[in-house]
This record gives sequence, C-alpha cells and structure tokens, in this order.
Amino acid sequence: MTANVNSPIRIALDAMGGDDAPRIVVNGAAIAQVRYPQAEFIFVGDEAAIKPLIDKHKSLKGRTKIIHTAERVLPDDKAAQALRGGRQTSMRLAINAVAEGAADAIVSAGNTGALMAMAKFVLKMLPGIDRPAITTFFPTLKGETVMLDLGANTECAPENLVDFALMGALFANTVLGVENPRIGLLNVGSEETKGHEEIRIAAQELRALELPGQFIGYVEGNDITNGTVDVVVTDGFTGNVALKTAEGTAKMYTEFLRRTFKSSWLARIGYMFASHAFKKLRKRLDPRTYNGALFVGLRGVCVKSHGGTDAIGFANAIGVAYDLVKYQFNEKISERVQVLHEKLQALPPEIKTAAPVVAA
Amino acid sequence: MTANVNSPIRIALDAMGGDDAPRIVVNGAAIAQVRYPQAEFIFVGDEAAIKPLIDKHKSLKGRTKIIHTAERVLPDDKAAQALRGGRQTSMRLAINAVAEGAADAIVSAGNTGALMAMAKFVLKMLPGIDRPAITTFFPTLKGETVMLDLGANTECAPENLVDFALMGALFANTVLGVENPRIGLLNVGSEETKGHEEIRIAAQELRALELPGQFIGYVEGNDITNGTVDVVVTDGFTGNVALKTAEGTAKMYTEFLRRTFKSSWLARIGYMFASHAFKKLRKRLDPRTYNGALFVGLRGVCVKSHGGTDAIGFANAIGVAYDLVKYQFNEKISERVQVLHEKLQALPPEIKTAAPVVAA
Repeated sequence: MTANVNSPIRIALDAMGGDDAPRIVVNGAAIAQVRYPQAEFIFVGDEAAIKPLIDKHKSLKGRTKIIHTAERVLPDDKAAQALRGGRQTSMRLAINAVAEGAADAIVSAGNTGALMAMAKFVLKMLPGIDRPAITTFFPTLKGETVMLDLGANTECAPENLVDFALMGALFANTVLGVENPRIGLLNVGSEETKGHEEIRIAAQELRALELPGQFIGYVEGNDITNGTVDVVVTDGFTGNVALKTAEGTAKMYTEFLRRTFKSSWLARIGYMFASHAFKKLRKRLDPRTYNGALFVGLRGVCVKSHGGTDAIGFANAIGVAYDLVKYQFNEKISERVQVLHEKLQALPPEIKTAAPVVAA
Repeated sequence: MTANVNSPIRIALDAMGGDDAPRIVVNGAAIAQVRYPQAEFIFVGDEAAIKPLIDKHKSLKGRTKIIHTAERVLPDDKAAQALRGGRQTSMRLAINAVAEGAADAIVSAGNTGALMAMAKFVLKMLPGIDRPAITTFFPTLKGETVMLDLGANTECAPENLVDFALMGALFANTVLGVENPRIGLLNVGSEETKGHEEIRIAAQELRALELPGQFIGYVEGNDITNGTVDVVVTDGFTGNVALKTAEGTAKMYTEFLRRTFKSSWLARIGYMFASHAFKKLRKRLDPRTYNGALFVGLRGVCVKSHGGTDAIGFANAIGVAYDLVKYQFNEKISERVQVLHEKLQALPPEIKTAAPVVAA
C-alpha cells in the first residue's frame, strides 16, 4: 500500500527553524532531493535568505517553491504566544500548506512547543484519536526501538495509551519496516499489580485487543535500550524523563570515553589503532541517524527535527516525513482505529477497570 | 555530630540474601571489619553454613554473633507473602534485631519488595515522615548524585516530595559529605507550568521552605548524569524508570565498547595500549562502588545491597549503613522534620495549591 508511484511527495519546510537555519534546511533538502527524487519542497521563510542558498544546488532546480514571510518563531517563544501572535511565521505558514492541501507533510527544526501547539490547532486530530503523541526511534542493543509519548501529554487515560500502541506499531512498521512489532508498556515491574491505575487498565485492554503487532506486557526502563520490544508505550511525562535520562547517560559515557583516550600517552596511541573501529561505532550511534520526531495522531504528517542538527540530520528528518507519506501512515491509522475503538467499546467492564492492588 | 567515638556500631546482616549468599555476606563483612574497626556484626541465617565462613577471617573473631534460622526469603517471594509467612526468615529476624535495639542497622542483599514491606512493618516510620523512599547515589559527569524515590511509592503527594528533598539533602550530606547540597525536582521542562500538579505544588513549597541545602527548581532527565544537582527528587514511578533507563543505557554503551574493541585486530591492539586507562574508567564506574540503597524515612537504618554483588560490593553497602549510623542520619532527620512541617503548615494557601496551567 503506497501512494501513486509517480505522484510527487510535497514537503513544506520551515526554512527559518533550527540553530543554523536556513542553511541546514536548504542543504538538507538538497541531500534529500537526491535520495528521494519524488520529493518536492516548499520552503517557507525569508526569500532573500533562502533563494541564494537554493540556487547553489542543481538537484533543487525546478523542484521547489518559496513562500516568503519575514516572521519566524523564536526558540524561546512560549507556545501560547506563538499560537496567538505567530500567524505569519514561517512555521505557521508551512503547517498551513499541509492543512490547505498544498503539501503532504511539514518538517521543522524550530521551537518544539510552538510546533506542537500550532500543528494541533491547524491540522486537528485524526478522526477517533484524542491526543497526539511525540514519537521517535533510537538505537538499542538489538537494533532500533520506537517510543511514544515523549512529551505531548503529561497525563494519559488508558484509551490514549491504547491508541499510542496502535500508532507506535504502525510507525515501527512504516519507518523501520518491522513486520509484526513487539509492543511493551513502560512500568516499574512485570507484575500485574505494579504501576499507576491507567497503566494497569491499558495493559488489560491491550491484552484483549488485536493490534498490528504483538503486545507482550510490561517492560522496565532497562528494556528500552535492551531492545526487548520494538515499541515502548508510555505517557509523555515518563517518556520524556526516560528519553532525556538515556541521552544524558549516553553523553556521560561518550565524555568518559573521550577523557579516557586522552588520559595518557599509551591511551592516545591505543586510540590511533582503534580509531577506525570507533568511527564505525560513532556512525552507529550518530544522533543524526535518529533525527526526526513525529507528532502522531494529527491529520497531516508533522516531523520535528532537532534544532541543533546539520544538513545530513535535517535530510534524515525529511526522510522520516517522506516515508510516512509514501507508505500512507496516517491512512493506515484511520483504517485501523475505527475497528479498534469498536472492539474497545465492546470489552467487558471488568477489563476497563483496574483490579484492586493487593496491599503488601 | 557523631555517635560516641568508642561505642561499637552494630550491624545486623541478612546472611542468606543475595545470589551468592552467605559467602558474599561473610566475606563482605570481613572486608568492612578492617575498614571500620568500630563495626560489629550479627549474622542471621543458617549457622551451619555461616560459621565455617566466619572462622576463616581473623578480622571477624570476637566481633560477631550468629542468630540461627533455617528459613529465608526467596528471590521470587511476593512481598505480602513474605510479610505474612516469613516471620522466622533471616531477613525478618535481622530487621527485628534493629527494632529490638540489638543492632543499629540492617543490610540485606535479598528480595527488595519483601525487605521494603518487612522493614516498613517492623521498624515503622520516623515520627512526622509519611512515606519511605528508596535512595541511592551514582556517578555523574561532575561527581556523584543522590536520587530518591527509586520505587517505594508509585504516587506521591507534594508533602512527600518535600520530605524526600529534606532526607535526600541529609543523605548527600552524611554519605557523600556535600556541605550545602543542590536539590532539583525532576520534571519535563524548566517552566513553572510544566509537569504534574503534585510537582508544581512541591516546587512552590520547596521554594518557600528552608532546607539543609539549596533548592534550585526543576531538573530534567539529562540533568541526572550531568550532575546539575546533588539531589534529584522524584516519585517512585518516575525515579525507578529513570534509574533503570540509565542502567540500561550504561549497559548498552559498555557492550558497544566491548564489541568495538573486538571488531578488528587493530582495535584489539588499540585496547592493549589503552587497557590501563580503561581499567581506571571501569573503576570509576564500578557498580560495586555505588552499591547500597537506603530505605529513608524508617525508624532504623535499612540498607539494600544489589543481589548480584560480590564481597567488595557488599562491604560497600555495609559502609553506607555504617556512615548513616555513625553520622546520625536518622537523628538529623528527626531534628529537622518537625520544624519543616511547622513551616509547611504555616505557608499561605496559594503556595499549597497549583497555579492553573495556561493552555497552549
């Protein structure tokens, strides 16, 4: 199930979002254009800054439009403020292009909160989906794992978690090509009685429902990097803390490694011998490879790139958007969610209520 | 403020808890005895198994007692079951020794859930403290950081988090020797309006109160290993997920490092040159150094060792218990908590209510 193989995939780009915008955006699009000849780009932002950059790339010739605007969302703008006062910003106009049908997807490396608020307001939710979730994937011991929600919702009802499981499984399917994804619910132990009530109810519901994948029950924090499952489902508070803790720990190890190789002359010589092997490891763990978080559940593909990424990272974020459009991710959700909710409705009430926790 | 310099510090040891018990317990005590000549040990467990091990160590001669029991808590026992049916287990009798005044502290490498349930039931809470919290410390980029709660309470009221901040600061003070600990509350952003209501109220209260340390506001997941603060305060659900995510990420990096050094002949040669430097790094990150989690808030010092540790790790867990007794950790809590709660009571009501979140 893919879009018409010949039809172009039109991606709106917030040309002014990101630490090094618009350079990374235009150069990233040029890289992506070579990788995905079907892609066409709409650059939204300051034409005087964008046009000379575009003109440098042959690959972009005749495949791009520019929508000019002088306004942009700043990194420190509050979401509410950007939503009210930012109707002419590059971010907002790029999102509008999707809502108006001029583009199939939007990619921005700008302010996350503003992007979330604007995308939710402009694009609205997919029918049947109550809450969007921030979704991404990262390296694990066994390959790659998708996790959601990473921060859109501080609190989640069991039904939100069920929707996240559906959307996460379809994401693993579409972006990572996992046939029958294993899905786990993040908790503090594997016993039935552990965790918040919402998690316990969601687990009961997930066991009773049919998903595009296999629900294997609870997983714990260490299972994320162990690659125990392909999809880790959690609320946005826990997911955000877990993601940032993993990033922080990775940073600490990288720094300790750097210091170790610089700690003595022998260690420096050792690094010279091992440097080729370490280059491969660095490539395996390159954050640019994992750039591109999706706001799943919206009526339109909206991908957030890291603000600090470079052109290669931005091209990868475009790649995520491209795959989601090409393999009709949102259409797959819409197809499945109706039936899922009907079955959820029909579940016996005891499954939708948490069993009382036995006091220790 | 320390206990009488000449009085012995008596530590009850659950001799049968841990993967390799009683060996690690007795050998760990022998190591600790040399480090802390003031320590005396009460071994609780199967005398026939313990006695021959004790007799091998000169350092333990005349400094130990044995309380014999044939029963023990098994690793898979449910907490409730251990509490009801385990009254003659080595774990329970070791805890009883503290409650009866025969010991100053208990250390066990056994089943965490059972230890928590039994310790809470037998020792009871310190006056004024409502909930115990699992507390430990680990390496960061800047040194070491204390985090609590790591899993005792799935949900926490703002007042529990305030108590955790107090106890965590005193822990950093007592065990790590930090004079004026910096305290952070784990959240998903630094803005006032982020996170759960309980966290926002706790932050308002902590700002208004006087603690043995400095409350610096919210911290995020990556701040844990960055060492931004000396004490990270959170609920037991979030803390457990964060700790296990950090452990999992550390494990992944260690494994990737191992594979990298084995990936080619050049890399192997590189390791030979760098091995001395890596030995130092391994020592810096040695989990045995960070062994020993405390159940803070109980009327008695109860330290949990990792089940899979060795004698050196177990000796370090004993060291944590020893320091907490010697530097009168519980007495310090009792001294401070009364005043803290009086001030908390006296705070104006708007501080004890969360400000409404501005919708984005």
